Amino acid sequence: MSNELETVGCTHSLSNKALREQYRLAGFGGRVGWGERPAVLVIDMARAWVDTREQLGSDLGAVANEISRVLRIARAIHLPVFFTTMAYDPESEIGEVLKRKTPHCLTMVRGSGNVQLIGELKRRPGEALIEKPHASAFFGTNLLSILVGQGIDTVVVVGCSTSGCIRSTCESAFNYGMHAIVPRQAVGDRSPSAHETALFDIDNRFADVCEIGDVLAHLEQLRGSRGAVR
Amino acid sequence: MSNELETVGCTHSLSNKALREQYRLAGFGGRVGWGERPAVLVIDMARAWVDTREQLGSDLGAVANEISRVLRIARAIHLPVFFTTMAYDPESEIGEVLKRKTPHCLTMVRGSGNVQLIGELKRRPGEALIEKPHASAFFGTNLLSILVGQGIDTVVVVGCSTSGCIRSTCESAFNYGMHAIVPRQAVGDRSPSAHETALFDIDNRFADVCEIGDVLAHLEQLRGSRGAVR
Amino acid sequence: MSNELETVGCTHSLSNKALREQYRLAGFGGRVGWGERPAVLVIDMARAWVDTREQLGSDLGAVANEISRVLRIARAIHLPVFFTTMAYDPESEIGEVLKRKTPHCLTMVRGSGNVQLIGELKRRPGEALIEKPHASAFFGTNLLSILVGQGIDTVVVVGCSTSGCIRSTCESAFNYGMHAIVPRQAVGDRSPSAHETALFDIDNRFADVCEIGDVLAHLEQLRGSRGAVR
Amino acid sequence: MSNELETVGCTHSLSNKALREQYRLAGFGGRVGWGERPAVLVIDMARAWVDTREQLGSDLGAVANEISRVLRIARAIHLPVFFTTMAYDPESEIGEVLKRKTPHCLTMVRGSGNVQLIGELKRRPGEALIEKPHASAFFGTNLLSILVGQGIDTVVVVGCSTSGCIRSTCESAFNYGMHAIVPRQAVGDRSPSAHETALFDIDNRFADVCEIGDVLAHLEQLRGSRGAVR
Repeated sequence: MSNELETVGCTHSLSNKALREQYRLAGFGGRVGWGERPAVLVIDMARAWVDTREQLGSDLGAVANEISRVLRIARAIHLPVFFTTMAYDPESEIGEVLKRKTPHCLTMVRGSGNVQLIGELKRRPGEALIEKPHASAFFGTNLLSILVGQGIDTVVVVGCSTSGCIRSTCESAFNYGMHAIVPRQAVGDRSPSAHETALFDIDNRFADVCEIGDVLAHLEQLRGSRGAVR
Repeated sequence: MSNELETVGCTHSLSNKALREQYRLAGFGGRVGWGERPAVLVIDMARAWVDTREQLGSDLGAVANEISRVLRIARAIHLPVFFTTMAYDPESEIGEVLKRKTPHCLTMVRGSGNVQLIGELKRRPGEALIEKPHASAFFGTNLLSILVGQGIDTVVVVGCSTSGCIRSTCESAFNYGMHAIVPRQAVGDRSPSAHETALFDIDNRFADVCEIGDVLAHLEQLRGSRGAVR
Repeated sequence: MSNELETVGCTHSLSNKALREQYRLAGFGGRVGWGERPAVLVIDMARAWVDTREQLGSDLGAVANEISRVLRIARAIHLPVFFTTMAYDPESEIGEVLKRKTPHCLTMVRGSGNVQLIGELKRRPGEALIEKPHASAFFGTNLLSILVGQGIDTVVVVGCSTSGCIRSTCESAFNYGMHAIVPRQAVGDRSPSAHETALFDIDNRFADVCEIGDVLAHLEQLRGSRGAVR
Repeated sequence: MSNELETVGCTHSLSNKALREQYRLAGFGGRVGWGERPAVLVIDMARAWVDTREQLGSDLGAVANEISRVLRIARAIHLPVFFTTMAYDPESEIGEVLKRKTPHCLTMVRGSGNVQLIGELKRRPGEALIEKPHASAFFGTNLLSILVGQGIDTVVVVGCSTSGCIRSTCESAFNYGMHAIVPRQAVGDRSPSAHETALFDIDNRFADVCEIGDVLAHLEQLRGSRGAVR
């Protein structure tokens, strides 16, 4: 992350109290809270996004560490966990609009190393891997049906990028009437200003942006409770 | 609009050349251009959004003027025009998540003056009015089917709010493989920083943000051409 | 139902035991049963379908009576109830494909008496009326989001027509991971053979086709239980 | 088709002229015809459906031959061709409702031979393979976006099973405003009565059921025309 941008800051940020108040008065930014049956969605933690040598890549090591903490407790209490990646057959599945606006999609070749999940999150059998064609994990995939079929009413959304796939996934969850929780430290973006502005919009429009500690504490508290085991 | 915010500016903006270059290198922000058969989507130009006395309202008079210019030429060349508004039966259609995160939805009562289009855009018979339940004009509506059924491949998206319904509608259009064009001066937002940051994201991820003059010129050029008449 | 057709019969029917066994061996036709939180979907009980003088109409008086029985108990135990009808602005919302294949859509004019619910089912405030553009109540509407937002996992589907909107609505519910229950006597079709063949397909592919008495008994049993009150 | 069943007959069939007339009077069964840009959708021609030793399998050799004829001309004129199959990770993607109603889904294991396309249709590079989770090729997949992105307005639907995935795919195409063409001899079903009744419903509600010869002739006529080459 460039220090310059971090120093300059951005007016469109959760740290801007006047802006938050303006949105509150306009009827945005309420707290939704948790529902009864959460699942964890790990978005796009694959090489294309986390390897700094890749076109889309940035250093998300700290984010991956926080995700591991979420996964540790989620697995301990048997919450459903879903991973996503993006993958195409470039010859037949990528149209002109997609290719022109976001040419990086041509590097996301189904079956290539580029789209494989990073090993460190240790995806387990029983944790679905969803190949999604667009930013939202719900668009053009079977994710919604799987969640509804399991009675999931809450998604904890982690991974990358905050301003792209995280924001879009939160919007879809909100549109479908689901609670969405974003532990701030467990999402990342190649652009600090994009990260900041997206967190503001996510928190005001779609999902509750929370401290990672609060999310872990809520999950801990589900241990042994009926909601966590199904 | 607060002068303070306009003066301070925002790093996450199309006027930030370094940021645009960072995105270009990451494979974002290509030009998609126009397809062959455009339609115009006029998003949420109803009292709730354009009357400054309303909770969500802001002064969008200048935006409405630019939209009128787009409509004048669009109607002259017989392009399909669609209007949207948001409307609910609050008793039966608004769930807990929606109500808590965005309590302003409770004021969007189907049939009330609040959700009626402003008269100045003079919606005509044959121009559909779509009641949408969420930000994207495509979510939970029949819009996509109507567009596909007419062979529309390009949507000119105007109205409000840039960071909400405009951005979401552009994302859906992009996801469905459509060209989306946003004439910068014909979209508006109650928050100048939200407007700026959203235009950056829209232009880099989903749609071509253009000058209004260029959009009008393109439409003019369709006059008499085969693409405009169907 | 006409006796003539009942006598002639149709090989593709739930009364054909050999066919049911063939499907069972092929891995179809299992019992799904009820989930924990049911809602009632009353499909298209509007004049266009139930007035025998209308193009699409047929005598559904007996069906309406059975639906009233379902509604009586559903309302007593405070289950969510949803009604649907179909309605268009014919000038702007009906494309060539729709108009050519099913020209009756031109008579379903938004706001006309033709698309209004019959009075005898006495829709109450708080019971949503969904205008759907196609056969499935889930297609191009906000129904799914409303259901998910209320934690509904089971839909009791009643109304008409068995081979059109009932079948399609059951398929969508199934696709989205929901339990769907069809009380046989509370659905109807202008064509007895369409009714019979559709019930076979619905029961084998999407939903449990049940006797009305069993459905009423299940709802009765929810009285006072936690599942029914939310 | 077995002669036995043709003799027995089914009242709900395209060969029942009185029924066709009843539907015509009710505003069903119009001819939609072809649009300008067709693609071919080959539905579920994988081992699970075409190997008679499999739970779902039936003898679709004649159907495969007709599909090959369609593909030969479609490839010669460079029409887009799409194949589908169904595949799951049974541990994480199959919910209770799906498993109970259609237990055969447990045999459709992603990556297994069971879900691989039969070799005889010789899928080529550039012909997308879509893994679909439900009957319709459009549900929970990216197919619609790919088609819209290519300007496709017509789908020729072939494969199996007529009463399941063919019917559902045609309904989706119709719902999205697309022309759908079903060459009767190029679709098949394990159940002759299901095949007959489904063809009636498809032709009256969603798509034009045509003779294979007429479909081949139409494609031939596109040779060299502008519509076929893009």
